[in-house]
Amino acid sequence: MSQPPIVTAALLIIGNEILSGRTQDKNLAYLAGELNRVGIQLREVRVVPDVEAAIIDAVNTLRARYDYLFTTGGIGPTHDDITSESIARAFGVKLIRHPAAEAALRAHYTPEQINEARLKMADVPEGSSLIPNIVSAAPGFRIENVFILAGVPKIMQAMVAAAIPHLKGGAVVQSVHITTNLPEGTIAAGLTEIQARYPDLDIGSYPYYKQGDVATTLVFRGIDAGRAESAAKETEALILTLGGRLIPAPIA
Amino acid sequence: MSQPPIVTAALLIIGNEILSGRTQDKNLAYLAGELNRVGIQLREVRVVPDVEAAIIDAVNTLRARYDYLFTTGGIGPTHDDITSESIARAFGVKLIRHPAAEAALRAHYTPEQINEARLKMADVPEGSSLIPNIVSAAPGFRIENVFILAGVPKIMQAMVAAAIPHLKGGAVVQSVHITTNLPEGTIAAGLTEIQARYPDLDIGSYPYYKQGDVATTLVFRGIDAGRAESAAKETEALILTLGGRLIPAPIA
Repeated sequence: MSQPPIVTAALLIIGNEILSGRTQDKNLAYLAGELNRVGIQLREVRVVPDVEAAIIDAVNTLRARYDYLFTTGGIGPTHDDITSESIARAFGVKLIRHPAAEAALRAHYTPEQINEARLKMADVPEGSSLIPNIVSAAPGFRIENVFILAGVPKIMQAMVAAAIPHLKGGAVVQSVHITTNLPEGTIAAGLTEIQARYPDLDIGSYPYYKQGDVATTLVFRGIDAGRAESAAKETEALILTLGGRLIPAPIA
Repeated sequence: MSQPPIVTAALLIIGNEILSGRTQDKNLAYLAGELNRVGIQLREVRVVPDVEAAIIDAVNTLRARYDYLFTTGGIGPTHDDITSESIARAFGVKLIRHPAAEAALRAHYTPEQINEARLKMADVPEGSSLIPNIVSAAPGFRIENVFILAGVPKIMQAMVAAAIPHLKGGAVVQSVHITTNLPEGTIAAGLTEIQARYPDLDIGSYPYYKQGDVATTLVFRGIDAGRAESAAKETEALILTLGGRLIPAPIA
């Protein structure tokens, strides 16, 4: 049986509000989870400000390096929403008013509400296809392997749901995790040996500290769920040998 | 009076657990806030996996592009902690065992606890200076303009506090924000005019949707607090002219 391919993606988060610390991004973790379910691995994330040169540079690097690129933010009606225009420049194509997007906006707003700022949300790079927005009408869009999504999590999530059927996934990463009361340093040597025997897995070790409590969560990730389970079982045995025990995962 | 300089920084978040969506990063917003207070602007963030080539590439790009680079994650005792070695490779220097770091670890752990995995946390690129860790002894370090910090937020925050006095800040960005019940699209045209009259400010517009409620928060950021206040006042007048009102900022 041939192996399913490894399919990769990157995320570009566009927005001064993330870099200033004003807004906590919630889209990265959501996208990572949704992509993983269809066999796409998120491999890199960048956060850049609302600056055209920074957006263009990141878009052109990331769309060449990964199978898919997703962007979030900067597709609203105000002056600081420059994503669509920047994407058009990155691809060297014109920004055009998409008739279906304009129709969606005119259906959503009253004639008194519709204005040039709102209609700007119908402007997409030539050759784009729309990603519907069931929350507030202004669509996202796709051009080649790049998916341009809203930054507001609720809208972003609806757009991800609309985009997912258009993605070609590959191997799905399975993961198993266990938590022990032993600190990382106690299990490190044994865990290194287990990792060496399971080069097909990514074994991650994550310490937890809270009010004097120490715990370590070990995550076993790989395409083969049986291998991940097997490495976890070996690690459980290691933990018992070292005088430790398994405990419920702490609430982070 | 001469203007204070613009001082910039980037953050490189190292860790599979962020890219898989398992862990929600909390360090970006914290670092952004602490840097801003001393006049350093966070301009770019990248998230890369625990892969040496990815770390080296990002470190060498970002340390050249910004005044400071901070990294978080990957300096623990386990096999997946490869940050120190990757930084040494990025700088083309040897990884050496730092005597003061080793002494700190030997003071923190009992003789039974100390082992090669834990001592690995004393290995730093040659030429580094240590950043103390008051939580769990294993230090961060600095090499040239790069500060290598722990990923665990509590430890990361202690290291940021220790690093801050060693940074040369410049102009501090001041920010003023107001919130209106008007949707973005209604104020967009007027706001564009205000932004045009205040090219020295970054005016951000952030929509908020919850259970049918719409609100827009407007953020005025710049070196000159008086200019930010003045632009905010003009925007308040715009909002009233458009039939809107100011409201308390929604809880995101």
